[in-house]
Amino acid sequence: MSSSQAIATEIDVLGPARIPSPLPMQKFVNDQDKLIMHISPETAEDFPLEGETYDFEEAGPREKIYFDPRKTKCAVVTCGGLCPGTNDVIRAIVMEAHFQYSMPSTLGIRFGLQGFIPEFGHDIMELTPESVARSHEFGGTILGSSRGHQRVDEIVEALDRMNISILFLIGGDGTMKAASSINEQIKKRNLKISIVCIPKTIDNDIHFVSKSFGFDTAVAKATEAIRCAHTEAMGAPYGIGMVKLMGRQAGFIAVEATLAMRDVNFVLVPEAPFCLEGPDGFLNSLKERVMRRGHAVVVVAEGAGQELCRWERQQNGQQEVDLSGNPILEDITGLLQRKIKEYFLAEGVEITLKFIDPSYIIRSVPANSGDRVYCGFLGQHAVHAAMAGKTDLVVSRLNDRYVYLPLDLVTRKRRTLNINSNYWRAVLASTGQPVNLCSKSNSVQMEGLET
Amino acid sequence: MSSSQAIATEIDVLGPARIPSPLPMQKFVNDQDKLIMHISPETAEDFPLEGETYDFEEAGPREKIYFDPRKTKCAVVTCGGLCPGTNDVIRAIVMEAHFQYSMPSTLGIRFGLQGFIPEFGHDIMELTPESVARSHEFGGTILGSSRGHQRVDEIVEALDRMNISILFLIGGDGTMKAASSINEQIKKRNLKISIVCIPKTIDNDIHFVSKSFGFDTAVAKATEAIRCAHTEAMGAPYGIGMVKLMGRQAGFIAVEATLAMRDVNFVLVPEAPFCLEGPDGFLNSLKERVMRRGHAVVVVAEGAGQELCRWERQQNGQQEVDLSGNPILEDITGLLQRKIKEYFLAEGVEITLKFIDPSYIIRSVPANSGDRVYCGFLGQHAVHAAMAGKTDLVVSRLNDRYVYLPLDLVTRKRRTLNINSNYWRAVLASTGQPVNLCSKSNSVQMEGLET
Amino acid sequence: MSSSQAIATEIDVLGPARIPSPLPMQKFVNDQDKLIMHISPETAEDFPLEGETYDFEEAGPREKIYFDPRKTKCAVVTCGGLCPGTNDVIRAIVMEAHFQYSMPSTLGIRFGLQGFIPEFGHDIMELTPESVARSHEFGGTILGSSRGHQRVDEIVEALDRMNISILFLIGGDGTMKAASSINEQIKKRNLKISIVCIPKTIDNDIHFVSKSFGFDTAVAKATEAIRCAHTEAMGAPYGIGMVKLMGRQAGFIAVEATLAMRDVNFVLVPEAPFCLEGPDGFLNSLKERVMRRGHAVVVVAEGAGQELCRWERQQNGQQEVDLSGNPILEDITGLLQRKIKEYFLAEGVEITLKFIDPSYIIRSVPANSGDRVYCGFLGQHAVHAAMAGKTDLVVSRLNDRYVYLPLDLVTRKRRTLNINSNYWRAVLASTGQPVNLCSKSNSVQMEGLET
Amino acid sequence: MSSSQAIATEIDVLGPARIPSPLPMQKFVNDQDKLIMHISPETAEDFPLEGETYDFEEAGPREKIYFDPRKTKCAVVTCGGLCPGTNDVIRAIVMEAHFQYSMPSTLGIRFGLQGFIPEFGHDIMELTPESVARSHEFGGTILGSSRGHQRVDEIVEALDRMNISILFLIGGDGTMKAASSINEQIKKRNLKISIVCIPKTIDNDIHFVSKSFGFDTAVAKATEAIRCAHTEAMGAPYGIGMVKLMGRQAGFIAVEATLAMRDVNFVLVPEAPFCLEGPDGFLNSLKERVMRRGHAVVVVAEGAGQELCRWERQQNGQQEVDLSGNPILEDITGLLQRKIKEYFLAEGVEITLKFIDPSYIIRSVPANSGDRVYCGFLGQHAVHAAMAGKTDLVVSRLNDRYVYLPLDLVTRKRRTLNINSNYWRAVLASTGQPVNLCSKSNSVQMEGLET
Repeated sequence: MSSSQAIATEIDVLGPARIPSPLPMQKFVNDQDKLIMHISPETAEDFPLEGETYDFEEAGPREKIYFDPRKTKCAVVTCGGLCPGTNDVIRAIVMEAHFQYSMPSTLGIRFGLQGFIPEFGHDIMELTPESVARSHEFGGTILGSSRGHQRVDEIVEALDRMNISILFLIGGDGTMKAASSINEQIKKRNLKISIVCIPKTIDNDIHFVSKSFGFDTAVAKATEAIRCAHTEAMGAPYGIGMVKLMGRQAGFIAVEATLAMRDVNFVLVPEAPFCLEGPDGFLNSLKERVMRRGHAVVVVAEGAGQELCRWERQQNGQQEVDLSGNPILEDITGLLQRKIKEYFLAEGVEITLKFIDPSYIIRSVPANSGDRVYCGFLGQHAVHAAMAGKTDLVVSRLNDRYVYLPLDLVTRKRRTLNINSNYWRAVLASTGQPVNLCSKSNSVQMEGLET
Repeated sequence: MSSSQAIATEIDVLGPARIPSPLPMQKFVNDQDKLIMHISPETAEDFPLEGETYDFEEAGPREKIYFDPRKTKCAVVTCGGLCPGTNDVIRAIVMEAHFQYSMPSTLGIRFGLQGFIPEFGHDIMELTPESVARSHEFGGTILGSSRGHQRVDEIVEALDRMNISILFLIGGDGTMKAASSINEQIKKRNLKISIVCIPKTIDNDIHFVSKSFGFDTAVAKATEAIRCAHTEAMGAPYGIGMVKLMGRQAGFIAVEATLAMRDVNFVLVPEAPFCLEGPDGFLNSLKERVMRRGHAVVVVAEGAGQELCRWERQQNGQQEVDLSGNPILEDITGLLQRKIKEYFLAEGVEITLKFIDPSYIIRSVPANSGDRVYCGFLGQHAVHAAMAGKTDLVVSRLNDRYVYLPLDLVTRKRRTLNINSNYWRAVLASTGQPVNLCSKSNSVQMEGLET
Repeated sequence: MSSSQAIATEIDVLGPARIPSPLPMQKFVNDQDKLIMHISPETAEDFPLEGETYDFEEAGPREKIYFDPRKTKCAVVTCGGLCPGTNDVIRAIVMEAHFQYSMPSTLGIRFGLQGFIPEFGHDIMELTPESVARSHEFGGTILGSSRGHQRVDEIVEALDRMNISILFLIGGDGTMKAASSINEQIKKRNLKISIVCIPKTIDNDIHFVSKSFGFDTAVAKATEAIRCAHTEAMGAPYGIGMVKLMGRQAGFIAVEATLAMRDVNFVLVPEAPFCLEGPDGFLNSLKERVMRRGHAVVVVAEGAGQELCRWERQQNGQQEVDLSGNPILEDITGLLQRKIKEYFLAEGVEITLKFIDPSYIIRSVPANSGDRVYCGFLGQHAVHAAMAGKTDLVVSRLNDRYVYLPLDLVTRKRRTLNINSNYWRAVLASTGQPVNLCSKSNSVQMEGLET
Repeated sequence: MSSSQAIATEIDVLGPARIPSPLPMQKFVNDQDKLIMHISPETAEDFPLEGETYDFEEAGPREKIYFDPRKTKCAVVTCGGLCPGTNDVIRAIVMEAHFQYSMPSTLGIRFGLQGFIPEFGHDIMELTPESVARSHEFGGTILGSSRGHQRVDEIVEALDRMNISILFLIGGDGTMKAASSINEQIKKRNLKISIVCIPKTIDNDIHFVSKSFGFDTAVAKATEAIRCAHTEAMGAPYGIGMVKLMGRQAGFIAVEATLAMRDVNFVLVPEAPFCLEGPDGFLNSLKERVMRRGHAVVVVAEGAGQELCRWERQQNGQQEVDLSGNPILEDITGLLQRKIKEYFLAEGVEITLKFIDPSYIIRSVPANSGDRVYCGFLGQHAVHAAMAGKTDLVVSRLNDRYVYLPLDLVTRKRRTLNINSNYWRAVLASTGQPVNLCSKSNSVQMEGLET
């Protein structure tokens, strides 16, 4: 049924699946079952790759599997920052491997990819139904996590040495790229190890994932901080409450929380550049709001307004890169607080500005019930894929269906907010902020900067 | 792009839309923008109507509108049982009508369709941004609700008399059928009144609605009751905790809550008939579980096991219908409690059985943040549709998209759980209950009953 | 300083305490440190025993202890219904015994006093810091509980056999009476076993305990049910929400929840008898409220209106005692629902009555932070008392101080609500219900009944 | 019964109370009803004023009142930082004044004492039962608040001009001192205005108030932040979670939250000075903990370690006072983070340090049910006192009783944590931190600093 198509969506396999599945299914999923997606004008920006139709492999248990369950050892590793639901995914993998496939052992690699490298000295955890039974009641990851790269050959060495046939990686963009490298190395060595990723990003910025796990939970916690900011703003003459939320390149948490808690008057995200100065700039718009209603709530995604931070550094003759050559990421909320105070002081309005940074409180809570169900399926589908011999893949929920996606499709680029969408219009309608927080002259200046 | 198709998905209109929309959109949604849905084998049971492809109209603001906003009065009515998020939908309608379309007035009809009938004497509420501003912080409906039918001609009479151009109905299956009748009457009288439904069902049993609003919130509350049942069961020798959850014809809440709170050992739903007696029946399975682990948690959808209740009545020579001729719906949880106590007494096992019926606690709470965002969009899209002159329609979120559906498509039949799906398999895997709670001989007996 | 005094408040000891405490205290509590309580007119009813001044022993670590910690084995048992905070008490006992007194072993007796009786076959748990570390995150009791008596000689036999020197009992009135009997038997056998009770009653009806542990948590959960009842009542024409709360002989939870959630219009408690009929009776008062405001919320303690139930049974010629000779406790909320429906039907008012019974949801939740701190101190002070060789005692928080009370002082009678107090006036002021829900003629009738 | 006594506890009155109270009480409270408090050795430090016995006037409605309710106007003002329960106190005052005393009007002064000063231009709110009915569902103060002094003569001028007979002030130490000045000015002018304070301090540092309102709610929220810090610390190799909590001069929130959430390993409070360096210093103790268990949680009251900050400034040659002559309060958590990072870097241990500052999230939430009941009584007793003509007083809950205290008794000094108490021992037992975080040599140095 699908038409001409430039995008590869086939899932790689280690070899033919010949072993009958031990699962008591009346109906298995076939590799030929597809989720077919048309890219309509409205969705074009969300799924920007070429080709007007995709057909993705449906996730689920296959009738024939590749690995002999009784002889297969698998391992789980969690990488990057904390995200609600991670323990639910781990739990689901362990339960599915143990009870449904009767696999003898699931290992937990401690503290991310560090856990593969002997010099760090981290122990290996044996994961059993008992040891994970209540893990979902707690936030974080029972395995621990870490950031940063480790040598791929050492990782593959460790997998081989520990006799691991399946590696489940729960992590973000960097982790999925590491998984690709690990998979290449595995192929090069001609090993039969399946690499299955469960995408984890609290920023919700992964393409072909409708909503990443933990996002709903994070938004719910974020709304609590916004409610507090609103209460603080209402409680003081000319009160301003500012909340910093996660989102380095995409403002999804900030925007969704704004839609859930309708007290926000300005939401600033990386996707919508803004100016501070000028009649249409943020500062004057904020002042107008504060004078009109006596208070205001501002939500800022951490990656918003980076061009302003750069401009500020240029003005101050500061470096663009630090000593190691990395670009300096300035804290936009620090800059905004300073500018707001200066501006209102100059305007003769005595404001009270309260700043809330709830990030660790948001990301370290247990998953809510919706995310729990979601994470349960992600873990189960990861096991199904691996047992069927599939590899180099990502498990995703896309348009209410669980699918398997090739790793390289997902990591090609990051998803960002479409500011021409009806979704963003609803945000502007809710906040009442100007469509464009920039006077013309400033925006020219901005454009100059952005190049 | 869509193929041969037997299903009408066109939305009816009152007339040509000629007035430019006042919305500050850079990009409007066209009537031609479609969500195209293929019915794959996996989805076939969920969308059982003929035709292998549907194309549904995307929801959203249209560039041209039918009603002149400054002269248009609209009304909102809520019918049926309480459901989390109802106030959010009302709030969104009022806000969108007022701030985006500058409509002069939104009326609130009190206590369901009763509010149209003068003899009940309910007042009409004037809904303003101020009066609804904080309504989403509370559960229930600020308009009040009621069940049951009212005379359609009186309703249309009232709409005409009050000069209402748009009626938003928030209600379930019965309400949508009433809306159809109202619409027919409107056509007959040649009135220009738009009828727009927002489907409300805490049971999540409406076709072409991926997940009805408030469902996630309800499941979250249901999990709290399950947790308590588990605690009670663990706290007594041979403790059994039983939780009754909503679901007259579909077990979605029971099942989703089971997947979210992994302590459930048996979940009984209308879609999966079961026997009490026999070696594979529920009672013996429950006993095996209790003896093996010392406790058990049973979740029962209110509509489960109705064939058992009928059988019980037949045995006792009771009537199938009450004095008014309505079929008697027996309380399955009452029957189960009695049978469990009798069975374990006969088996000489002293159990402690705790029963929890949390239904009003589940349905009357405020919406969680996810449902808030969802309800906000439902309300906004309802206003967009009505202003564009569309009528006889339902606003739905389907596969992560908001669409407009013809009323009669949605009410054709109810959605139920597919017990051949991977979803149900995951439930059985989680509970560990037998795939079939029925010995062969019993199931014959059952089949006899079911005819 | 204390005056003539008829009440014994001395705590019994097993023998002189001669061993230096291992605790790193700069200042210990002396047996002579007293909490002195004057019985003012306002407090007279709360502390009704003779004598106008009490002096109670302050709880806390003593400089000299009786038991050699390294050789002392203790045991914990939980009896009766679930109550929030029970696991916190257990946890505190284990932690204090292990880390502060370095005791080698704390045993957990399973399922209440049944755990001492071999024929039940319950295992004994070894309680360690690891096994209890996270127990406070969950409701209920990790030991399990049971109701009912067991033979005292068998219990003492078991204590002796297991070489237990200290028994901590967490339970209510019945448990404390059992503890007394156990202690007598211990004395008779000349054993050196300390018996220390931590009073557990969700009804808050124990004398000389200002507020029993878990009560605050229970009230907080109860308010959620009341909020739901209010939402349901508001959501229907002439809606009435009824909530049944715990309180067999005392209405503390009902009343405190009423004060915390100001939407209650009638609170019915055992201490304030009421009539149904007559112009000042409950039914007419309810009708007046419903007609005036369109809805009403009624909170009923389970032990309220027992005299009405008896009257009803007499009218119907039913027995006062069941086959075993026990008095029949009728469900007042069942009676009230029936009477309300009949009354409004007769009055021609079509009401919608929603009934919520949240009891298991209230009592099985984890303790809130205030109760956690409280339970921690109860557990620690229990260990201090026992190690100092004190016995036959109860640990209590009284007027913000922790004290040791003789067992027989506490069990002499139950505490009930003083309906002449300012506290009850505040309740009436909040609900707006009549001070006396009884017409004169009816109250005569009632008096006749009450004899 | 009370003995020789140096402390004045009599409450001042505006004049004789001659009007019969309109309250439907069967039993009023007499001015002679006393709460008698003995100062035992254990309590001595908590109540440090001379005299071994206090007798405080019981709060409650008096049989005779001073003001004629129908002609009396009262006003409420809230000052200082937000605190959970403030709206509950306001609500209770309004409800009691309106429904129980039938007073015609209660005014709300906006934004603290600023509201009395015309130049600020704040409006006056008319507070009615309707306008406050749901206010307790929200945090903060519906009146708004502000910090800082205003001219006393202008305030009294405004009271006189607005014809206000009773002023209720909800605020902390500074507010109570301002209330004293206002009262003096009122006396000087021979006005008949009652001044009644309800003490508000989230730090719980007011003498003769067992636990200030909102404290329990604040602690509950603080435990959530600690839980997150623990999750973060567990989630990284050598993870350290640090939480900053309120408490400028007293560590009550930090300590109570530590007792409620048993995952804290170090709690630093103003009352217990500590050193950073040396074998017994904080840094080495922290390292030992981290190396032993892999992670640690540190809770810091904002006023802890100020002597270290001073020392640091001296070393760096910084000023002790700012340009306006005010002492510089350095942020101890900033200093600690820097020192910890430096120390572990030097020791070659790669830690992950996560810092959480939840203060605005803690103080702006609605009150929990316990605080709601408490605040309700505070508001009611405030009205009773004022109507009886009492003035210059504070309403307090002391040892589970509500009492009236003279203003100057309460403001004489601040309450701090007694680090020789059993309470503090329990904290050390829970954290496992050294009793004294200071080596000898360092403590000498510290002593030198503290002078």
